[in-house]
Amino acid sequence: MPPASFARRATQLSSVMPTSAPADSIAFDSGHAFPGLLPDLTSEAGNALSEFRAETLQYAPRPGLPELRAWIADHMRADGASLNASNVLVTNGAKHALELVCRLMIDEGDAVVVTLPTYFSAIPIIRSFGATFVEVPQDANGMDVDALATVLDRAAAAGRAPKFIYNVPDFHNPTGVTMPFERRRALVELARRYGVLLVEDSPYRKVRFEGDSVPSLKSLDAEGSAVIQLGTFSKLLAPGLRVGWAAGAPDLLARMAQLKTDAGSCPLTQRVILEFCRAGRLDAHTTRVQETYRAHRDRMVRAFERQLPEVSFQTPNGGYYLWLSLPPGVDGDALARRAADAGVIVIAGSRFFANGGGDQRGRFIRVAFSHAGLDEIDEGVRRLAAAYHSLGTGAAAGAAAN
Amino acid sequence: MPPASFARRATQLSSVMPTSAPADSIAFDSGHAFPGLLPDLTSEAGNALSEFRAETLQYAPRPGLPELRAWIADHMRADGASLNASNVLVTNGAKHALELVCRLMIDEGDAVVVTLPTYFSAIPIIRSFGATFVEVPQDANGMDVDALATVLDRAAAAGRAPKFIYNVPDFHNPTGVTMPFERRRALVELARRYGVLLVEDSPYRKVRFEGDSVPSLKSLDAEGSAVIQLGTFSKLLAPGLRVGWAAGAPDLLARMAQLKTDAGSCPLTQRVILEFCRAGRLDAHTTRVQETYRAHRDRMVRAFERQLPEVSFQTPNGGYYLWLSLPPGVDGDALARRAADAGVIVIAGSRFFANGGGDQRGRFIRVAFSHAGLDEIDEGVRRLAAAYHSLGTGAAAGAAAN
Repeated sequence: MPPASFARRATQLSSVMPTSAPADSIAFDSGHAFPGLLPDLTSEAGNALSEFRAETLQYAPRPGLPELRAWIADHMRADGASLNASNVLVTNGAKHALELVCRLMIDEGDAVVVTLPTYFSAIPIIRSFGATFVEVPQDANGMDVDALATVLDRAAAAGRAPKFIYNVPDFHNPTGVTMPFERRRALVELARRYGVLLVEDSPYRKVRFEGDSVPSLKSLDAEGSAVIQLGTFSKLLAPGLRVGWAAGAPDLLARMAQLKTDAGSCPLTQRVILEFCRAGRLDAHTTRVQETYRAHRDRMVRAFERQLPEVSFQTPNGGYYLWLSLPPGVDGDALARRAADAGVIVIAGSRFFANGGGDQRGRFIRVAFSHAGLDEIDEGVRRLAAAYHSLGTGAAAGAAAN
Repeated sequence: MPPASFARRATQLSSVMPTSAPADSIAFDSGHAFPGLLPDLTSEAGNALSEFRAETLQYAPRPGLPELRAWIADHMRADGASLNASNVLVTNGAKHALELVCRLMIDEGDAVVVTLPTYFSAIPIIRSFGATFVEVPQDANGMDVDALATVLDRAAAAGRAPKFIYNVPDFHNPTGVTMPFERRRALVELARRYGVLLVEDSPYRKVRFEGDSVPSLKSLDAEGSAVIQLGTFSKLLAPGLRVGWAAGAPDLLARMAQLKTDAGSCPLTQRVILEFCRAGRLDAHTTRVQETYRAHRDRMVRAFERQLPEVSFQTPNGGYYLWLSLPPGVDGDALARRAADAGVIVIAGSRFFANGGGDQRGRFIRVAFSHAGLDEIDEGVRRLAAAYHSLGTGAAAGAAAN
């Protein structure tokens, strides 16, 4: 008979498994890159496997290749954060960095603060370590810092401070909201004052379509120990490389590195990235990424305005997603299922609520404009609109019957 | 102030950090490959990044590339185990597979059975999940199954079965011992009878220098749910690729896959491996690995016989290591420190005992013959002999004074 933990942990995580759907389905669900944006890395890989073979085919230092750590620190310094290589830990993607934060910090029953809603892949990772969630609402400017202050005050009074605050300040996943400067400053100040680690997850920071970049939470962390930023090359370059990082206080990163059981992240992919960046290709690539996804966003926004004006959304200035608000009586879970039948995969909003979502649970779906091409975007929205209309006005009732 | 778990987990793992030593030191400590054996993978990587670009630069399926899972199943079937792709989960190296087993199975305070001594990198991984260790002695034939039966009997009577039994049956790390057939059969039967998962960690299985291969524990697991085997391409091909696997019951692997927070292991390195294996290069490479490390082992054995006959060891038929038994009065920790000063890095035997080692703690050191070249092996043993003799007959006392 399997142990208790076996069934419990499995159940907690089952919601992240992919949906199965018709073969010609259009993927509005995933954070995959647009295939036309995948760069040619053959030359970089050739160098990495010849000139650097003794490095790329042996075990790598557990904190990452020193040169890549230095490059990431430079990259973040150019973005306003005061860092050097000792502030950078290379990980197998940003989610791995979040897992390491959880492994280090969480004991069964600890609380973690997240936004309502929050990134759906973060939920099972945090929960699998036995944490409970305290949700803080957000508005058009992101996490409500007054509500957060109340939460932290109450927790401090009870002697049970949360282990960390998890937030996506740039092009929030799923809502697309970007926190303005004053809100960020207040957030960092709260974290510092209450001594609660602030985890800034910012994979889409460079995927900005218009407007100026807002200082990162990490750049506002004057003492350097209040914020740990999670970054990734998945959205900068290509998801398949599986290289991300955590940037924070060296003592915290050293303890996370000790918990890495990968015997060092893959040195081959780290070196391929270094070769790409050092060849000066990243800036031009980032511009292409921004231009391409801006066009995707615009196409999708227009398609929804034309084909499905019943849903509403705030147009994001960057990132990969629209967070669609559904009219009363239409259930997001039902719409997601009907859409899959109609050949377009979307993610029900219910999956983005750490504690179930209450009366917000059925009111949203998330659609990605990153992976599908322009014509596919039109066709996908057309299918989604058809699915929507097929639900009729009794959408919510239809959902319950499914 | 950091939470309790913070300091505790960090302390537990500090022993796996690398030693610092003079720049021209000879590495007898690591499981790195001999640099001359690192294969040329430029052509495989070129294909992977052009023909397979849409696969290798996007997120991969969480259980691994289906073709690689099928290839690994074929590879293990050829080794006597009854498997198909559904029995294989691709991981970021074998240690990552062990971590996933731990994450799934262990609750704080659970017991795990290991050999005395055991693989030193497994100790902090298992301990970091809050497990305690039950050590079972081993002899020249590996884990003592009679002693194990007593342990399992007692645990069953107390209603506290261990969560799993961890063992390295082929060229055990660190002792080099290979379990004979009858002992293996008895071990699998015990695991099955008591319903305790048996974790077979066998990275060196193909690194055999002479004699016939003994059936794997997994191949003796008739029902398929008693044993999970951990494998890796690190010792077959190159450590830097960071691709390993777990082979076991599909329901167990599905739950482990749900706990993978890497968004799928790197598809680029998986495809490079597939291209290498499908080009038929693995067999010839394995032969080169076996011949090279056999020569390394022979050279090191002769060097110790000539230069340091005071230590004794059982010559292993494969693997990467000699486990040196020291005469009374010579302390392994002291010798390892003195050796580092003398420019040869070895690992003190004390690190291989999950519960400290008691009176065995100071009696061994582990030396690897894998990474150093033939001349370096001679020079390294010469340095180690000099360090040994510099300790004098009062070695143990000298250690205490250090």
